[in-house]
Amino acid sequence: MVPPHARAGAIFLRYVRVTFSRLNQSAVPMTPATTPFAERLLACGAEIARTGAELAARGWTPATSSNFSMRIDDKLVAVTISGRDKGALTVSDVMAVDLDGHALDPALHPSAETALHLQIYRREPDAGAVLHTHSHNQTVASRLFASKGVVALHGWELQKAVTGYTTHDSELDVPVFPNSQDMRDIEGRVDAWRDAGKPLYAYLIDGHGLYTWGRSMAEARRHLEALEFLLACELDLIRLGGNP
Amino acid sequence: MVPPHARAGAIFLRYVRVTFSRLNQSAVPMTPATTPFAERLLACGAEIARTGAELAARGWTPATSSNFSMRIDDKLVAVTISGRDKGALTVSDVMAVDLDGHALDPALHPSAETALHLQIYRREPDAGAVLHTHSHNQTVASRLFASKGVVALHGWELQKAVTGYTTHDSELDVPVFPNSQDMRDIEGRVDAWRDAGKPLYAYLIDGHGLYTWGRSMAEARRHLEALEFLLACELDLIRLGGNP
Amino acid sequence: MVPPHARAGAIFLRYVRVTFSRLNQSAVPMTPATTPFAERLLACGAEIARTGAELAARGWTPATSSNFSMRIDDKLVAVTISGRDKGALTVSDVMAVDLDGHALDPALHPSAETALHLQIYRREPDAGAVLHTHSHNQTVASRLFASKGVVALHGWELQKAVTGYTTHDSELDVPVFPNSQDMRDIEGRVDAWRDAGKPLYAYLIDGHGLYTWGRSMAEARRHLEALEFLLACELDLIRLGGNP
Amino acid sequence: MVPPHARAGAIFLRYVRVTFSRLNQSAVPMTPATTPFAERLLACGAEIARTGAELAARGWTPATSSNFSMRIDDKLVAVTISGRDKGALTVSDVMAVDLDGHALDPALHPSAETALHLQIYRREPDAGAVLHTHSHNQTVASRLFASKGVVALHGWELQKAVTGYTTHDSELDVPVFPNSQDMRDIEGRVDAWRDAGKPLYAYLIDGHGLYTWGRSMAEARRHLEALEFLLACELDLIRLGGNP
Repeated sequence: MVPPHARAGAIFLRYVRVTFSRLNQSAVPMTPATTPFAERLLACGAEIARTGAELAARGWTPATSSNFSMRIDDKLVAVTISGRDKGALTVSDVMAVDLDGHALDPALHPSAETALHLQIYRREPDAGAVLHTHSHNQTVASRLFASKGVVALHGWELQKAVTGYTTHDSELDVPVFPNSQDMRDIEGRVDAWRDAGKPLYAYLIDGHGLYTWGRSMAEARRHLEALEFLLACELDLIRLGGNP
Repeated sequence: MVPPHARAGAIFLRYVRVTFSRLNQSAVPMTPATTPFAERLLACGAEIARTGAELAARGWTPATSSNFSMRIDDKLVAVTISGRDKGALTVSDVMAVDLDGHALDPALHPSAETALHLQIYRREPDAGAVLHTHSHNQTVASRLFASKGVVALHGWELQKAVTGYTTHDSELDVPVFPNSQDMRDIEGRVDAWRDAGKPLYAYLIDGHGLYTWGRSMAEARRHLEALEFLLACELDLIRLGGNP
Repeated sequence: MVPPHARAGAIFLRYVRVTFSRLNQSAVPMTPATTPFAERLLACGAEIARTGAELAARGWTPATSSNFSMRIDDKLVAVTISGRDKGALTVSDVMAVDLDGHALDPALHPSAETALHLQIYRREPDAGAVLHTHSHNQTVASRLFASKGVVALHGWELQKAVTGYTTHDSELDVPVFPNSQDMRDIEGRVDAWRDAGKPLYAYLIDGHGLYTWGRSMAEARRHLEALEFLLACELDLIRLGGNP
Repeated sequence: MVPPHARAGAIFLRYVRVTFSRLNQSAVPMTPATTPFAERLLACGAEIARTGAELAARGWTPATSSNFSMRIDDKLVAVTISGRDKGALTVSDVMAVDLDGHALDPALHPSAETALHLQIYRREPDAGAVLHTHSHNQTVASRLFASKGVVALHGWELQKAVTGYTTHDSELDVPVFPNSQDMRDIEGRVDAWRDAGKPLYAYLIDGHGLYTWGRSMAEARRHLEALEFLLACELDLIRLGGNP
């Protein structure tokens, strides 16, 4: 199912990775790639590394948690390898998988959570980038709203930062799904929500953080930044005894 | 109503913008401007970009929210173009409008919120700079005090940082107006407050953040910094069960 | 009462200040001073500027609030000039006064709060540096404990960071005095506390922040850092419903 | 009990320290050491200094509190000297002691808290690095849970960042021991907990902060970062009225 030229490109990239793994992200060379696929994978890796450094600096990726991905083409996705420090990523910390989760480079193994990224790329044709983060506010909100199953945001001007929302006078629902070490359980919850016809731009997992996405990395980041802000405000209104 | 030399200067600046749009703010050249107006617009753009970078670093402009402006002369105002990342502004992200909101460069369209900036410049002859930010504390305070319609600050030494206040033993009222996607609704609330003879140095919009201003950008920033601090303290006293 | 050579040094320094006022603190030259007094004043100015930059970066000096000082010799004190941005101080933002508050350079006027610094240098022979800051936690704690008149700290290991304390099993009292725009009112409260024989290492002013001091700037900063930490912990225990 | 070559290496290092004590950590030379022991001590010192700078930047080591150590070999440990600013450590701020607490360089005296580090190295054969920090959340949690004697963490995905935990559906107990100025009291509490057969990855001391460890400095830091995050979440759920 994986096109042969893509697999060749992935194997080639392993050598690129070995060569450049000690360089920091700003020195990532874009020229030596031999195929458009390899060039695109390197470009995705560089953008993911830059994003990781900025999100880690805000404290949203504690203790090697979180993972990030970008769509390479209609069959392949670039995703961070599990367990790396998200504040110090290089292109060698990003791998390519197909939409069924098979690694293109046989020497690399994707993390279990990659399945949730791939589900989003399969279900949402427009999704170009997925961000899974683990900030304090996201994690606390997920616990506090777990029994209700949703954080219902309304009345906030910044809801307009989520694509498709044009007024504060709307309701933006962020579902909270139970956590599981078996990704198929979480995938089932996501499918059920979508199959019920409900819009979905982001979701929380109980005790585990947030998934959000966008057509581009810039849009995914804007969604992430807006949702982090809105969850923080929502929590604070509760601390203050207000009626959010 | 717009003087011809100003419009010529604005058209000229479009070319300057294209040329320099990729330079970072510290490299903004001040020399090639051909008219005093163009020089002044470039200077305002540079000061707004520098301010934006500093306010964004504090987290007060999440997800491309917020906007900033400065008075160019008695007829014209420099204002940020909508939707840009406020932490990475350059002079090419600032446009000129007259006091009725007409863009000098016909290729640019001001954001809806520009109307609130212009209302301030029309009503307050001394206003030289306006800052609209969207910090956590401003947004949460606006929701919590929306039903009361005002945050009444008293007893804080830092009230003296707002021009005209000389003692903590005074009352500094920050009104909270309802949010609307039609700026004329908000303009009407501002006019009504001022027409009732009440002093006005800043206002909150429910769920939407703060507007404040000053004779210079330095004074507007001092007002913003003081009000952010005072709102944060006021909220915390409530969390702590104190009587603010 | 001011020795003539000191006044001559101060006048000389005005010219040094004009010359170097645009240099940043790291470029402050220590060589051109003509007297030991001028050298010492420049050294104090550089240390105060460095301290100001670090405290401002923590957000403890909002909106040009706060002031800092160091003892120059047995008759003179170096103190920040009022109204400057404490994060961007240079030696030209520091002036010399005698213990009665007379400026050595007749062109400069000390701020009203200088009186509280001088009272400390007169009463505490060991005091070598005084820091007045205006952090969120200091200001909120001062309001919350104003009616009680004191924050009584006990059970915290970090009390040992205050000189003279050797165990967490002690009580460190930080009095809270009412605010006033007449410094003599506050001076009277400080005198009364000390005249009652109570130890004093720091005090809060209601709605106005903290004063603390030490034999050196390093000790004053350690006291400040410890007290900020302890006040923050004390407030948080209250938010959490604990019994501090 | 201390091998002679190690003592010689330690004395040698005193001269290295004097020579290099003014260099910042990035300039620490690794070459002039004369023995493998001295090389290892210098390497530990450099890693501890780097770690200290990063933890201090997060505000987890206020007012010269906190201390850090690494195992040099089966008999010796490198540990920070008491009272230094943990954000500005160099190799000259790290000393070598044997597992009974005797300093190799007779001119240096270890701090009292070194005893708690050594107890961990004696009891846990795998421990390669120990971090004692003093963050706001650690200190507040220690006070709030002191009477209960333990913070019982469960339901958090990030528990998996602690070695040995593979699911959020587990319980991670962090005991809270009473504070004492006599380290033997605290050692006794730790021994009793371990002798009762309970696992131990970290502990809090009431009003005093956290001890945690790992096989390497990287693992110790991951544990520290995860526990800081989890304690912060646990506290916030309480503030929000949730049932953690």
